[in-house]
Amino acid sequence: MTMTVSLQQIADLVSGQLFGDPQTTVSGVSSIAEAGPGDLVFAESRRHVHEAESSAAAAVLTRHEPESGAKPAVVVSDPRTAFAAVLEWFAPKITGEPGVDPTARVHESAQLGENVSIGYNTFVGADVQIGAGVVILPFCYIGDGVRIGENTVINPHVTIYPTCRIGSRVIIHSGAVIGADGFGFNQVEGTHQKIPHIGSVLIHDDVEIGANVTIDRSRTGSTEIGEGTKIDNLVHVAHNVKVGRNCIIVAQVGISGSVVVGDNVILAGQAGVKDHVTIGDGAQVAARAGIIADVSKGSRIAGFPARSYGDQMRIWASLPNLPKLIKQVQALESRVNELQAQLAIGEASCYSEERVAE
Amino acid sequence: MTMTVSLQQIADLVSGQLFGDPQTTVSGVSSIAEAGPGDLVFAESRRHVHEAESSAAAAVLTRHEPESGAKPAVVVSDPRTAFAAVLEWFAPKITGEPGVDPTARVHESAQLGENVSIGYNTFVGADVQIGAGVVILPFCYIGDGVRIGENTVINPHVTIYPTCRIGSRVIIHSGAVIGADGFGFNQVEGTHQKIPHIGSVLIHDDVEIGANVTIDRSRTGSTEIGEGTKIDNLVHVAHNVKVGRNCIIVAQVGISGSVVVGDNVILAGQAGVKDHVTIGDGAQVAARAGIIADVSKGSRIAGFPARSYGDQMRIWASLPNLPKLIKQVQALESRVNELQAQLAIGEASCYSEERVAE
Amino acid sequence: MTMTVSLQQIADLVSGQLFGDPQTTVSGVSSIAEAGPGDLVFAESRRHVHEAESSAAAAVLTRHEPESGAKPAVVVSDPRTAFAAVLEWFAPKITGEPGVDPTARVHESAQLGENVSIGYNTFVGADVQIGAGVVILPFCYIGDGVRIGENTVINPHVTIYPTCRIGSRVIIHSGAVIGADGFGFNQVEGTHQKIPHIGSVLIHDDVEIGANVTIDRSRTGSTEIGEGTKIDNLVHVAHNVKVGRNCIIVAQVGISGSVVVGDNVILAGQAGVKDHVTIGDGAQVAARAGIIADVSKGSRIAGFPARSYGDQMRIWASLPNLPKLIKQVQALESRVNELQAQLAIGEASCYSEERVAE
Repeated sequence: MTMTVSLQQIADLVSGQLFGDPQTTVSGVSSIAEAGPGDLVFAESRRHVHEAESSAAAAVLTRHEPESGAKPAVVVSDPRTAFAAVLEWFAPKITGEPGVDPTARVHESAQLGENVSIGYNTFVGADVQIGAGVVILPFCYIGDGVRIGENTVINPHVTIYPTCRIGSRVIIHSGAVIGADGFGFNQVEGTHQKIPHIGSVLIHDDVEIGANVTIDRSRTGSTEIGEGTKIDNLVHVAHNVKVGRNCIIVAQVGISGSVVVGDNVILAGQAGVKDHVTIGDGAQVAARAGIIADVSKGSRIAGFPARSYGDQMRIWASLPNLPKLIKQVQALESRVNELQAQLAIGEASCYSEERVAE
Repeated sequence: MTMTVSLQQIADLVSGQLFGDPQTTVSGVSSIAEAGPGDLVFAESRRHVHEAESSAAAAVLTRHEPESGAKPAVVVSDPRTAFAAVLEWFAPKITGEPGVDPTARVHESAQLGENVSIGYNTFVGADVQIGAGVVILPFCYIGDGVRIGENTVINPHVTIYPTCRIGSRVIIHSGAVIGADGFGFNQVEGTHQKIPHIGSVLIHDDVEIGANVTIDRSRTGSTEIGEGTKIDNLVHVAHNVKVGRNCIIVAQVGISGSVVVGDNVILAGQAGVKDHVTIGDGAQVAARAGIIADVSKGSRIAGFPARSYGDQMRIWASLPNLPKLIKQVQALESRVNELQAQLAIGEASCYSEERVAE
Repeated sequence: MTMTVSLQQIADLVSGQLFGDPQTTVSGVSSIAEAGPGDLVFAESRRHVHEAESSAAAAVLTRHEPESGAKPAVVVSDPRTAFAAVLEWFAPKITGEPGVDPTARVHESAQLGENVSIGYNTFVGADVQIGAGVVILPFCYIGDGVRIGENTVINPHVTIYPTCRIGSRVIIHSGAVIGADGFGFNQVEGTHQKIPHIGSVLIHDDVEIGANVTIDRSRTGSTEIGEGTKIDNLVHVAHNVKVGRNCIIVAQVGISGSVVVGDNVILAGQAGVKDHVTIGDGAQVAARAGIIADVSKGSRIAGFPARSYGDQMRIWASLPNLPKLIKQVQALESRVNELQAQLAIGEASCYSEERVAE
């Protein structure tokens, strides 16, 4: 599975300027934090270049000319496009057979774009529209009226309920369920009557959805995941939620109904968000945080109930002192009692000695 | 997908008395809390009627004649039946084709009731019994000996292990796994030997089970979900658990082995329950609560380890003061030390001055 | 489904020595903690024998000759083998039809061992190798290049992405997703560029994987689950994680990227582990613990952020006193203020009286 190229080949691919040994061997791509020997890393800023140079990486892709020459580098003017090209080069290719597998059930009213691959035993319902280059792997259920953009990849065992809309270049991993009914009931004489959810789910372009994720359909309108947002495994997104662009939602996060998440928000693992809360753009929510109130733009919060990161850190740092503190306060109370008693005696004796002295 | 009716049509449907403009347009049904323009809401009590009248809803369905006339209303004597009829009218219809799809594998010993729909590529094992009007969508696995009541809907990609029993009017969402082995092992010389789970799962009538939920089979007897209970996505119910009637179990809750949950219990999102705990009827467990001991009937609990809601609120309100409190106590200790020193000096000087005065 | 045997039959099966009534009826196997009438339990140590004797169990399997005779017993020299034999006797048999189902899609390059069962509508990709006696139930997706050892059982709706390797005697429950892409991105000008994950997943022998579990493929190398480790439902294991042997990972646990878990570790339900943390052999992590730093061998930890079990217990025991403590400290401050004032007056009066006395 491993592919090995020279740094010269990468420089050629991205039309970049090469610094250092052109024969440097590159066998993978990594973040700077996780780089090992053989990895090419991308360094956005000069600070990242310095970090990259002290990492185990084989070489750096950047727009900044190297100062130290500590590490071979390829310098380009448009690193975003260049890095994407390198990633695509190294990425494992999804092996969908071209065309519609004979075992697949594709409704006659479905419209398929060019070079669509519909895998073994996949179901495509009525009035579905699938864009060019889409790959749908085995055992997927694409409900009636679903629309899928171009070059989207849907892994085995994905369920997309009717009328959901999926953008272009989206990746959906196995077991994800898009568009199940929102969890809404009206209590009538002690029983729970199901509220119809006639809305849908709208997944914008360049989203990635992890394995066994659930994103519920809205009551009306759409539950929405913004462009470029990446969702890890086993995340729950409830009905009517609006998630913005380029968010990172880590595994096992739960987002309750009607929550609004801004752009560029990070929700770390196992965090939870109460219904109807708004999280501002660029907010960073720590792992396992429980959010019960609106979060302002750019803030960093942690804990449950969630507070500013700094306040929460101070609380966490203080907690181990609590058992001792209780004893300290008890001891202080005793001492104050004694002092009070002494003071009473002292004053009394002072007066009485006065009297003696008189 | 949107359907629009007049309030007159709704009054006709439920044989109700109409107050206000009969041409009022209704395009959906909502809870009062989430109502938007065009929504019909159900108001159980007079208090709910008042709330509904100050909501954005288009009209109210209730048994109480309107006092203010602030909102068009339909009044009925049996609101439960009426509301169910309206909900059914608005609910999206599940589009199972009648009959058994030619690609489905239905064992010859399986018994199917009238108007059963078995979808594309669905597996129905030996000795399965399926009641009238049941819809099983594509890619479901119905293991040997499973029994399903009437008018139950099973969405795509549901797995029901052998011998589980499912009631009538149950809805199971995609990816749910009913009846996998309970997680039980016996440690023998450092290895974990699997305990056989020869029990089953019993889902009573009118239960709804969310996407990617897991409900494990019991060791013997049945893991049980009571009538009318609604389970949200990604919930885990372990072996031998007994859940009562009309409970609400919100997303990502985890219920450990042999827990007993009473009737009308609410377990809010991401809560967890320790094994062998009993939760009394009507208890309300807050989001993210971790329950480690029995919960009494009707109580409201929160936090981890879970406490009464009031106690937990006081702790949460107090926590931000903890870092300051530690400093306060340190300052107090210093002051008490000083006071003690002063008192000693004061007394000494008092005595000494006495002596001087003598 | 229930099977009933006499204790004599069990003694014969395991070639054990029988104490007590040979006609004792045994209808199941249990852990001592959950034993009911009719259950055979396994008792490893003398202490376990005593616990078993005071349980509801019908009989005990052990290597220790009974002292009290309070309970019928079968005594063997090799209890591990004996207990496994009894468990296998009672375990429900997985009913895979022998051979390859005609609806299954098995690539011509796939190699199947003897007595392999490939169920209805299962997909087996190119270059897959499947060992003897493996049972793959309906709707499984076995990607290209996957290798599976002997006698492994894969339940319906399991997805195994290409190149993953699964050991012998492994059990994988429905909805599990093995080998989806790790959640790794590089931020480039505000967008998240997907890092290729060209690694794999390696599941060693005798592992059990619960329903709807997700185990992600590594960036390079393998995400690894050690021999004999048991994983409950809805657990998330991120890319590059290494889990040791004979671990117990309870439902809804989340393990972040590059975590190392030693042998014989217990991670209780809903616990979470931060990325790159190492958990030492034999560590016991309490339910809902959030681990943010390395855990030493054999330690017992709880809480979030996780601490030693004892420290955490003391904090939890102290927390209910916090609201009162704040009031106590306020009261103390007032009293110290008063004392200080009194002392000032006292001293002043002492002096002034001195002056009077002079």
